[in-house]
Amino acid sequence: MKFDIIITISLKEGMLNPEAEAIRRAIAHLGHTTEHLTTADQFRFVLDAGDKENAEEITRSICERLLANPVIHKYEIEVI
Amino acid sequence: MKFDIIITISLKEGMLNPEAEAIRRAIAHLGHTTEHLTTADQFRFVLDAGDKENAEEITRSICERLLANPVIHKYEIEVI
Repeated sequence: MKFDIIITISLKEGMLNPEAEAIRRAIAHLGHTTEHLTTADQFRFVLDAGDKENAEEITRSICERLLANPVIHKYEIEVI
Repeated sequence: MKFDIIITISLKEGMLNPEAEAIRRAIAHLGHTTEHLTTADQFRFVLDAGDKENAEEITRSICERLLANPVIHKYEIEVI
């Protein structure tokens, strides 16, 4: 079976994020006030897997072995 | 009023994405087959705006003037 997968990887709370700070300032220069600006990387793909549980397990393993650094990143998984 | 904003920026269809191709191959090395792998940048923040329509307009302007390159990028906006 084929599943649509969405992985969103972001920095854990408390990690410095200079990119987010730069964007917050640039938006302020445009005249708009923002709070709690965070950045994330998103990956979407179609995955071949036996069932939904299996798809989730494979996706989790892809995150932990390849896409995320567990020391600094957290990740969200959607299996559709 | 404050609104939660989620902006997702990705490459338009047909644009070369070497990062996505590299990830697809790395996942294949882990033994899993994926299709249609795409990458995107996501930005989340809280925005001060008069009403929801105004928040959407400001967010669109932030995308077009700052975050996205309209030649190569498309963007999705969520205002919550």
